[in-house]
Amino acid sequence: MTAYADLMAFTRETEALSSVLGRLGWDQETMMPSGAAPQRAEETGVLEKVVHARRMDPRVGDWLAAADPQDAVAKAQVRQIRRDFDRAIKVPGALAAEIARVTSLAQGHWAEARAADDVAAFAPVLSEVVKLRREEAAALAGPGGDLYDALLDGYEPGATAEALTAMFAAMRPRLVALRAAILGSGQAAPTLSGPFDEAAQMRLSEACARAFGYDFDHGRLDRAVHPFSAGSGLDCRITTRTSPDEPFGSMYSTIHEVGHGCYEQNVAPEYLLTPLGAGVSMGVHESQSRIYENQLGRGRAFTGWLHGQCREAFGDMGVADAEAFYRAANAVQTGFIRTEADEVHYNLHILLRFDLERDLIRGDLEVADLEAAWNARFEADFGVAVDRASNGVLQDVHWPVGLFGYFPTYTLGNVYAGCLFEALRAEVPDWEAALAAGDAGPATGWLREKVQRHGGLMAPREVIEQATGKPVSVEPLLDYLEAKFGALYDI
Amino acid sequence: MTAYADLMAFTRETEALSSVLGRLGWDQETMMPSGAAPQRAEETGVLEKVVHARRMDPRVGDWLAAADPQDAVAKAQVRQIRRDFDRAIKVPGALAAEIARVTSLAQGHWAEARAADDVAAFAPVLSEVVKLRREEAAALAGPGGDLYDALLDGYEPGATAEALTAMFAAMRPRLVALRAAILGSGQAAPTLSGPFDEAAQMRLSEACARAFGYDFDHGRLDRAVHPFSAGSGLDCRITTRTSPDEPFGSMYSTIHEVGHGCYEQNVAPEYLLTPLGAGVSMGVHESQSRIYENQLGRGRAFTGWLHGQCREAFGDMGVADAEAFYRAANAVQTGFIRTEADEVHYNLHILLRFDLERDLIRGDLEVADLEAAWNARFEADFGVAVDRASNGVLQDVHWPVGLFGYFPTYTLGNVYAGCLFEALRAEVPDWEAALAAGDAGPATGWLREKVQRHGGLMAPREVIEQATGKPVSVEPLLDYLEAKFGALYDI
Repeated sequence: MTAYADLMAFTRETEALSSVLGRLGWDQETMMPSGAAPQRAEETGVLEKVVHARRMDPRVGDWLAAADPQDAVAKAQVRQIRRDFDRAIKVPGALAAEIARVTSLAQGHWAEARAADDVAAFAPVLSEVVKLRREEAAALAGPGGDLYDALLDGYEPGATAEALTAMFAAMRPRLVALRAAILGSGQAAPTLSGPFDEAAQMRLSEACARAFGYDFDHGRLDRAVHPFSAGSGLDCRITTRTSPDEPFGSMYSTIHEVGHGCYEQNVAPEYLLTPLGAGVSMGVHESQSRIYENQLGRGRAFTGWLHGQCREAFGDMGVADAEAFYRAANAVQTGFIRTEADEVHYNLHILLRFDLERDLIRGDLEVADLEAAWNARFEADFGVAVDRASNGVLQDVHWPVGLFGYFPTYTLGNVYAGCLFEALRAEVPDWEAALAAGDAGPATGWLREKVQRHGGLMAPREVIEQATGKPVSVEPLLDYLEAKFGALYDI
Repeated sequence: MTAYADLMAFTRETEALSSVLGRLGWDQETMMPSGAAPQRAEETGVLEKVVHARRMDPRVGDWLAAADPQDAVAKAQVRQIRRDFDRAIKVPGALAAEIARVTSLAQGHWAEARAADDVAAFAPVLSEVVKLRREEAAALAGPGGDLYDALLDGYEPGATAEALTAMFAAMRPRLVALRAAILGSGQAAPTLSGPFDEAAQMRLSEACARAFGYDFDHGRLDRAVHPFSAGSGLDCRITTRTSPDEPFGSMYSTIHEVGHGCYEQNVAPEYLLTPLGAGVSMGVHESQSRIYENQLGRGRAFTGWLHGQCREAFGDMGVADAEAFYRAANAVQTGFIRTEADEVHYNLHILLRFDLERDLIRGDLEVADLEAAWNARFEADFGVAVDRASNGVLQDVHWPVGLFGYFPTYTLGNVYAGCLFEALRAEVPDWEAALAAGDAGPATGWLREKVQRHGGLMAPREVIEQATGKPVSVEPLLDYLEAKFGALYDI
């Protein structure tokens, strides 16, 4: 065997073991009995250790040095493996273990602090997490490297704080202005009135999943407290949540996760269990979930079809017609909580977090000053004062578990979705007529060919740019938001 | 650290990885989407390889040589680890891989052959499986060792073909005579008439599981085509099946699997993720599932309670009273299929298989002569000629997948259950009154203390003998069967 073949055989086994970790994560959130948690933590910890040790196995270094990849696919495989290897060997094992230990405990402390709205109690824990992740970032970045970029690169290869800062700075004034105009318009979106049978919501969720092309032979739909997708290749599972009070959460959570799930399901089969066999970055992943959920799922065409489905399940829901249902699905309301935000507010939540976490990691902001900084920025952008920490700085699990550098990929995903949607509308003539009949096939087929099938073959930004034929830009997203919500709110 | 501490730390990780394999197996039979099978096979194969490599890691040999265990528990841990290590290093890696490959394919060939009742088509495949397992047995047994014993030892440490042959020879005439007397009695058991709502069967199954002390905080109950239990320690899951035609299958499959599940759940917590932290052998495991299902679950006391539950769910089911329901739950009928056999017939199915597989592995019977030998023996013991191979030699998956030495543990489990039931009745005064009220607690509590909590601390036979204070004997089982069914059939 050549070094490349040896490298790929070894890596395929590593990917298979890594895939098992994904399955355990799914089980933990959907099926695992409550008392199994300590045993599961130990099992997961050992398997993670095995996978991590394989990624930095010295033989991988030797094979990488000797490998002579012959084509674009082989070159991309080697690039991905080298990237994982280089990152893995840079972080001392003791530091990695300490981060795993501290963040695991921090999650529990955070949950308690959030329940008690007690920022002071959590501050020492968060300081420790920040300190450890900064140490890791220093190890990854090397002398003179940017600490935040080193972490960001783990979620969005090639992205930099500098580029994101510029991108987000261009978005913020237009988003703030749009938000103010909508809320100043005096218009209010209708709301649906129930009851909304939860079993019917699950049936509608399944219908939405099928409408968007989710393959139930290679996945399944279950309930989870916080919806997520898990898996890759031939086994990509999704989850949703239901609430008796309103039905949009179940259906749009489903469509969002279908976007993630289909990206994984549609990667070219020849990449199965290789480093190319999964979505290329968090940002591109989010572009798929967002365009499925928002540009396609919340558009007038699909909501027209969905209105008919919902009327059959729930009666008239207190809305006069499909247009009122469309307005209800796109209600804009200021809220404290990111995960409940509409399309207009969502990115403002992210921009706030990006600026704060970048400064924390770079050492330009202390944890002691974090809450005040959060509250000031929130009031500036959202026009409302944060009433309590669980509605502010304590709301997300990301920082407690050390996910610094992750938040901006959400907005990057929205920006990418904006670019893709612009191109899709130009290239796919029948996308909207099909959606109006409950078939996202033309739109999702285009995304499959242009984005999803490539898996990790190209760099994240490259995926979007080859799909659209244009440089990535914030303009399409902002134009789309201003046009859609301008029309909805008569502004 | 001492060698013992190093050995235990390493082994604990191996056990954790092995536990993940159990979880994947459960998922495969209950939740996995159909199209995921090829990917799952690869994932499972890699993880098995990792676990196997760890069991025979040279460091384990070094630690075993240097370990100086100080107490009974530590000595038992070392004994179990040495046993696994010695077995693992004896089998050449290429042979182990070939067995995995061939038996994996053989299962598919067997399913096709069984569907077509085509013994000839399957014979070459089975010959290959037998040949490979004989090679493995030779490697395990060493020069002059018994091939069958070497395989048997993998499922029931310490058992020998010689001892089992003598034990089973003592059982066969009394079982054959009891069977003949029952069928010659002219008495027929009543049968229940439906319909039997399958959701109600699942609710009753859950009630049965709770009645027998299954802990849903550390397990769950799902449906599966072939009921099984999976897991150990804090996460022991069970499955059952339902049929619209009759309800006993769901409830008694559940109680059977609860016996397996409770054995795992009740092992002393300090053995979690160690070699002592699971049931000690297939035979002792089966003793728990059988005594839960049969001696306790199908006894007059519990069926009295169950009759009330079923009447609430299904109406009168066409039986006059609790006594008729008890008779229906203990109907004796000759059938071809082992898994559908009643208490009287079951062991005759096993005795047949044991004699044939022992002779196959020892080279005293050729695969070419297997079907004829099966059919002759079946007619001799059951009084009926086998009508087709799927009702005969092709019915079980065990031989196709290479499980030679496994079948006798079923009857050994019944024998152990007979011994335990005799002791339980003598020592636990209120077991039957509690069962009549739907509470198996006094009986299962005794089993937990006497058997289950010990996990792998003692040798299988030793577990039973210290629990009962007597040598293992077939007499209690045979006495119990003759008394119970003699009364039921007026013989």
